[in-house]
Amino acid sequence: VSEPASVIFSTPAMTAVFSGEAWLRAMLRFEVALARAESRAGIIPRAAAEQIVQASAADGLDADALLRETASAGTPAIPLTKWLSGRLDEGARRYVHFGATSQDTIDTASVLQWRDGLGLLERGLLELAASCATLAERYRFTVMAGRTVMQQALPITFGLKAARWLALVVRQVERLRDVGTRVLLIQFGGAAGTLASLGGGGLRVAELLADELNLGVPDLPWHAERDRVAELAAALGVVAGAMAKVANDLLLLGQTEVGEASEGAAPGKGGSSAMPHKRNPVDAWTAISAARLAIAQVPTLLNGMVQENERAAGNWQAEWPALPDLFRHTAGAVSRLGSAMSTLEVHPERMRENLQQTRGLLMAESLSTALASLLGREAAHALVQRLIANLADGEALASATKAEPQIAAVLSADAVDRALDPAGYLGSTNALIDRALRRYQGLLAAGFIPSP
Amino acid sequence: VSEPASVIFSTPAMTAVFSGEAWLRAMLRFEVALARAESRAGIIPRAAAEQIVQASAADGLDADALLRETASAGTPAIPLTKWLSGRLDEGARRYVHFGATSQDTIDTASVLQWRDGLGLLERGLLELAASCATLAERYRFTVMAGRTVMQQALPITFGLKAARWLALVVRQVERLRDVGTRVLLIQFGGAAGTLASLGGGGLRVAELLADELNLGVPDLPWHAERDRVAELAAALGVVAGAMAKVANDLLLLGQTEVGEASEGAAPGKGGSSAMPHKRNPVDAWTAISAARLAIAQVPTLLNGMVQENERAAGNWQAEWPALPDLFRHTAGAVSRLGSAMSTLEVHPERMRENLQQTRGLLMAESLSTALASLLGREAAHALVQRLIANLADGEALASATKAEPQIAAVLSADAVDRALDPAGYLGSTNALIDRALRRYQGLLAAGFIPSP
Amino acid sequence: VSEPASVIFSTPAMTAVFSGEAWLRAMLRFEVALARAESRAGIIPRAAAEQIVQASAADGLDADALLRETASAGTPAIPLTKWLSGRLDEGARRYVHFGATSQDTIDTASVLQWRDGLGLLERGLLELAASCATLAERYRFTVMAGRTVMQQALPITFGLKAARWLALVVRQVERLRDVGTRVLLIQFGGAAGTLASLGGGGLRVAELLADELNLGVPDLPWHAERDRVAELAAALGVVAGAMAKVANDLLLLGQTEVGEASEGAAPGKGGSSAMPHKRNPVDAWTAISAARLAIAQVPTLLNGMVQENERAAGNWQAEWPALPDLFRHTAGAVSRLGSAMSTLEVHPERMRENLQQTRGLLMAESLSTALASLLGREAAHALVQRLIANLADGEALASATKAEPQIAAVLSADAVDRALDPAGYLGSTNALIDRALRRYQGLLAAGFIPSP
Amino acid sequence: VSEPASVIFSTPAMTAVFSGEAWLRAMLRFEVALARAESRAGIIPRAAAEQIVQASAADGLDADALLRETASAGTPAIPLTKWLSGRLDEGARRYVHFGATSQDTIDTASVLQWRDGLGLLERGLLELAASCATLAERYRFTVMAGRTVMQQALPITFGLKAARWLALVVRQVERLRDVGTRVLLIQFGGAAGTLASLGGGGLRVAELLADELNLGVPDLPWHAERDRVAELAAALGVVAGAMAKVANDLLLLGQTEVGEASEGAAPGKGGSSAMPHKRNPVDAWTAISAARLAIAQVPTLLNGMVQENERAAGNWQAEWPALPDLFRHTAGAVSRLGSAMSTLEVHPERMRENLQQTRGLLMAESLSTALASLLGREAAHALVQRLIANLADGEALASATKAEPQIAAVLSADAVDRALDPAGYLGSTNALIDRALRRYQGLLAAGFIPSP
Repeated sequence: VSEPASVIFSTPAMTAVFSGEAWLRAMLRFEVALARAESRAGIIPRAAAEQIVQASAADGLDADALLRETASAGTPAIPLTKWLSGRLDEGARRYVHFGATSQDTIDTASVLQWRDGLGLLERGLLELAASCATLAERYRFTVMAGRTVMQQALPITFGLKAARWLALVVRQVERLRDVGTRVLLIQFGGAAGTLASLGGGGLRVAELLADELNLGVPDLPWHAERDRVAELAAALGVVAGAMAKVANDLLLLGQTEVGEASEGAAPGKGGSSAMPHKRNPVDAWTAISAARLAIAQVPTLLNGMVQENERAAGNWQAEWPALPDLFRHTAGAVSRLGSAMSTLEVHPERMRENLQQTRGLLMAESLSTALASLLGREAAHALVQRLIANLADGEALASATKAEPQIAAVLSADAVDRALDPAGYLGSTNALIDRALRRYQGLLAAGFIPSP
Repeated sequence: VSEPASVIFSTPAMTAVFSGEAWLRAMLRFEVALARAESRAGIIPRAAAEQIVQASAADGLDADALLRETASAGTPAIPLTKWLSGRLDEGARRYVHFGATSQDTIDTASVLQWRDGLGLLERGLLELAASCATLAERYRFTVMAGRTVMQQALPITFGLKAARWLALVVRQVERLRDVGTRVLLIQFGGAAGTLASLGGGGLRVAELLADELNLGVPDLPWHAERDRVAELAAALGVVAGAMAKVANDLLLLGQTEVGEASEGAAPGKGGSSAMPHKRNPVDAWTAISAARLAIAQVPTLLNGMVQENERAAGNWQAEWPALPDLFRHTAGAVSRLGSAMSTLEVHPERMRENLQQTRGLLMAESLSTALASLLGREAAHALVQRLIANLADGEALASATKAEPQIAAVLSADAVDRALDPAGYLGSTNALIDRALRRYQGLLAAGFIPSP
Repeated sequence: VSEPASVIFSTPAMTAVFSGEAWLRAMLRFEVALARAESRAGIIPRAAAEQIVQASAADGLDADALLRETASAGTPAIPLTKWLSGRLDEGARRYVHFGATSQDTIDTASVLQWRDGLGLLERGLLELAASCATLAERYRFTVMAGRTVMQQALPITFGLKAARWLALVVRQVERLRDVGTRVLLIQFGGAAGTLASLGGGGLRVAELLADELNLGVPDLPWHAERDRVAELAAALGVVAGAMAKVANDLLLLGQTEVGEASEGAAPGKGGSSAMPHKRNPVDAWTAISAARLAIAQVPTLLNGMVQENERAAGNWQAEWPALPDLFRHTAGAVSRLGSAMSTLEVHPERMRENLQQTRGLLMAESLSTALASLLGREAAHALVQRLIANLADGEALASATKAEPQIAAVLSADAVDRALDPAGYLGSTNALIDRALRRYQGLLAAGFIPSP
Repeated sequence: VSEPASVIFSTPAMTAVFSGEAWLRAMLRFEVALARAESRAGIIPRAAAEQIVQASAADGLDADALLRETASAGTPAIPLTKWLSGRLDEGARRYVHFGATSQDTIDTASVLQWRDGLGLLERGLLELAASCATLAERYRFTVMAGRTVMQQALPITFGLKAARWLALVVRQVERLRDVGTRVLLIQFGGAAGTLASLGGGGLRVAELLADELNLGVPDLPWHAERDRVAELAAALGVVAGAMAKVANDLLLLGQTEVGEASEGAAPGKGGSSAMPHKRNPVDAWTAISAARLAIAQVPTLLNGMVQENERAAGNWQAEWPALPDLFRHTAGAVSRLGSAMSTLEVHPERMRENLQQTRGLLMAESLSTALASLLGREAAHALVQRLIANLADGEALASATKAEPQIAAVLSADAVDRALDPAGYLGSTNALIDRALRRYQGLLAAGFIPSP
């Protein structure tokens, strides 16, 4: 039966990449690539390599049984190579896994899964970025309240908000591409990291192995130095955190009392068992949940860097489920936020209404500025402060301003309206939106991480 | 396909308790109990309640499909009650889930799973405690080096070490029993925690519901106040940490250079693909991995206490997989440590050899004490310090002591040997072992948490 | 210079309890109590004990210098006992710290600080509870929107909200009292936990030592078994999380668009450098920050339970700053939330306004119920659903209901108004408030944790 | 009084960089740079800028008082700019902090501290790398047991171990340099991120401001998008984890029963209060403690990415102490590991002895390989397996091998000794050491992060 965690807080594609069977299959890819590399290097017979290739490709892998044997063997590589050997004839058998250690197989298999996982994440992030870019353009001039420390502060546009989300998402794609260049490496060191059983030929095999798998060659084996693993984990955690930030913004915008944006409806989505009138932000909250679940694994990998001697007991093995959970839940966060964003219903009229909530106080700074050139900066500031302090309950700043003789003497009612118009006090908003869009265009122009 | 995380780092029994299907079945138990309670309270017709009971008991629950619908609905309670309603006739349908909110169903179902989970953990811990108690008795007088900051310090016995493990394990059972009394409560508040749709009858239904499920009644609904959830999570984290401490001790004792205890062999267990001579501490390291994975979820639940208003969006939903992971991995840690401990091979001869490593320096304090009554405390201390400082490379403290005229004048060679005998410098070791065993006996005499 | 962390995110009192000097002074309290206990047990001369008592009480402790020596010695107990010995005459010197190990001193000193810290937290929580109780009574009947998943759901009263906060706070006091009974114990085991240098007299000294310090005696020394430390840490983390939940509710209520409650103003508090009209929820956000900082330390203590052999290298030492940080920041969270709550300005008129936001949709369930006895449950439900589906933009449910002939035939306009009145659909609200208040009264009736 | 956390688990230099006063001084640097930039842009009068520069440079900053005001104001920028304004004449006052928001000041000030902190870390890591490089060269051929899962596995050299540490440390320097290029940016957006009060001139001021501070210009303001902060935190966490890995290796090597390397002695360092014979690994364990404390802050920054709207309440403020703690404790870990490594005493004779612990079993694979070409691979393997299985208790593999007629027939005693010589079965060890040294040389050749 499917686990709730995978079905609700991940995506089917990412769940498949990190299934038990996919893990074992990736290990077989390592064994195949190793056999080919050693055959190319003249270390094992070509015929043996060919048998290994064929046996690995065949059906009949019982992942459940092998995982159960893993539990007692302590490593999947032993039951797996035994299974593989059992399908070879006597002569080829001795060349399976030749010169490698369990961890070579398992780590490299994980790296192959990471590559697929990074590809899926990039695709999801690019879809999300596309939605953000569309919103940034479409609502470039749609004025709304900018909010700081949960209070309305100054006007912005919804386009700027979307542009900031866009820039954040774009940086995540760059981050994953960047980390990919550092972590997509083979693991190959043999039992104690010396490649002893390959005599002096180990490093040559390493290069051919990397070539077979289209992975990089690390400086040294990294059995017990897990900084790259931790860096990858952290990068995924940052991506997850970025998703949660945006999803939380959607929750805040979608509150009954704010109502500025809401998730699109779909059959079976987001109803409430007790309250038929509610429209629930299911995608946003699921993105947040998934992000929390992803981030939870990061400290496991950071603290887990304490790996004993040449190969570790405990912290390494804890990586096996921790990294896949990170990928799974980060994918869940990306996907659910993408779904929310691509169907987002934006309500400019509520944005306008909410801007009126403070009856113009948001524009006090703008009014000061308009008066400064006429009355002097200090006098202007003092005057506006006094106006605000004396505002009657419920009175708007606009009417109070127009009724103030000192101001009426220098500013027409029209000029007052202009000074209090949020659309006129947006500073560099437009230029910032352009910047975000340009950077997104640049990202699209660059290459992709290869994916499954 | 089974997930590696569950198969390797948990137990089949705990995995079953927290499967997707078990979760949904527990929700049906809530709906059944609610229907019975409301029928007892005269709120819904008895016939309707009976239909609900029968429909819930029947086959045909497609857990996979319901979990997929959960992903879009945002809650399993909606598709589940729809499924249940679909199996009732028109008249009974309206009484399903009457007066409850999704979270009432889901939280109470989780509590039912927790109860089963706590029962399984208690059983595992008691088996582990039994092994520790046996070791504490059997090796009560087996002298070995006590080690502090990774250095030999003073002699202890292996029985004392086992007694300390035992006391630690006993406290975990007590801890879980204790937390059980606080967290095994129904959730029942309706949409906003007021039980509004039950008029004034809500609290009476709550009592009957608790009675049906044999759970406690909380002071108030706890939809958004998750201190009990966090407390449970923390208690499991502490249990996991306790397992990791002991497992790490086993790793340290089993090092090639220490060799004082090792895990029992079993077919298919703990071999190495490249090094046939190794006997790997598979259970111990798997216990550590599982404990790390368990602990990782605790901060999710602590930070996740920030739940908005009357019912939350994001942090509550993240609990759904986080708590089960905590149970699953804590169970894995308990079970694997139990396996290591019950098959532990103890090597008293290596313990004796290792005690000789410092050629008697461990016993310097004992020698000082023996001399103090004869030479005065200060003189004795200074003399022993000088002896140690002048020890030739490789020379034992015993021979140097006997060769020292000032000492020979007051202590016979036999008396020197007695002063340097680790078995004679054990302080309260025996009394402490007794204490641990007594507390364990007390635990056995007390009751158990009810379990599945 | 004061650290920002302590000044902003803690309280002066808690910072003082955990200062470097207070830590060292608590160690001296251990040495004094040990000397007294050993004198009472006839193990050291009474005169020596008296000298130790006097020397410890005197001035002249240079905490800075001792901490710097600690950095190189690896433990404060060595420089401290050296400092203490330096103030004794030759004869008394040898009885300082007699039979104890560094960790006995340091752990017991920490426990003494914990006791003070728990006392301060309890006091802060009780003040907070008092504010919540006042609000629960005062606003018992003040209707507002209950909100779930960030959407308005059903009416509640602000009194109920405060009562839920109250119950949460009350549970935290109970939690701390409870954990106090388990963790306020001496540490006393000597170098390897056997009390070897006290011969058979160690356990008697332990009892006298505990008596001197008014602490409990543990079953066994707990040098490397840190479950109690982790439990304490987790309990503080839960308290911190509880504070953050309530503080976040205040943030949500205080949003410009919600405006239902706001922190009281004070000179120099909560202004904005750029936006003079803002009233910032400084206390609430500082409470959240402090809570986050507290919770961050919990995993350190949980993962840190992996302590090697009889006494650990690394994870134990990491406790020294981690636990104080937990206390400091939990105190900060409690104190700032207390400040917010005691000055909270509640705005019932905004609560009423906000309840109108959905123009009556929140009361649809209530209307259905009212109609059910007249039209049959099913017909009533269908009718209300249809009404809602056909509501014109901006139309209120009340007017639509009254205009519906089927309803007008059975319900008067007054009866419709009653059915749509939030104050009439509050279920068990009042009874739940009573429960919370009763539990709070019960808490006040029980004893306090002794505090400084 | 100094806090234990800073004195014991950090360095004086890093503590100074992140003191409360240094934080405030860095804010003044922002205000100065902003005034200069705005004067260059013609936005504020040159004379006003000059006054701001001079007033900021003067003495009289009472950091303690300002931090206390920060606690109630909720931000240090308000009391600080008030303090600064108080030192200017009327005319200049209005130009302080012109167009900026509190967070612009605080974030940019933090970035300036990060730059200093990164410089200090780089320096510490380079010193550590130098020690590792020396060890890698010096012990290039010193054979010792490679250990996996806490068991001896195959021979390595101590030089290889040091080379792997070296490579790990080198990658950390690269990692910090790399992250520096992404995070050392100004923050400048004004109250809502639009730079509204600077009209269209905001982006020009941003460029000049960055120029003044020698920082980069970000694409957009990043008030509420904290991915860079989280990335920095994670990078520091990875560095800390790397330190802990190596420090733990030192603990393992220094165990009484292993004794292959130990920390150098120094006056007042690492003694034991109860056990004068012990040589405690104080630096190693302090490095581990510090690393744990550093890593604890990473999740705060990851979860803390959820920052509301345009500027956040709670999670942003929690960064203020969390990042400094990360720097402080990472510095502690780097520094203490550096101290351990630079004084490390290596014991090649214990390494040789320990290699004999398994009486040759470590070399079984090598023997098989030597026999393979003579007897056929399969026969050779079977023969060696049988030899091992039949070894008498305590018998060495060498003598058993020489006594075996089938082997004696093909291999001389000398050849057997060669096959069983650990120094002859080191595979690519030498080449891997060269690689690590080359990469280190490359690092030295590249530039440094500018530092204080």
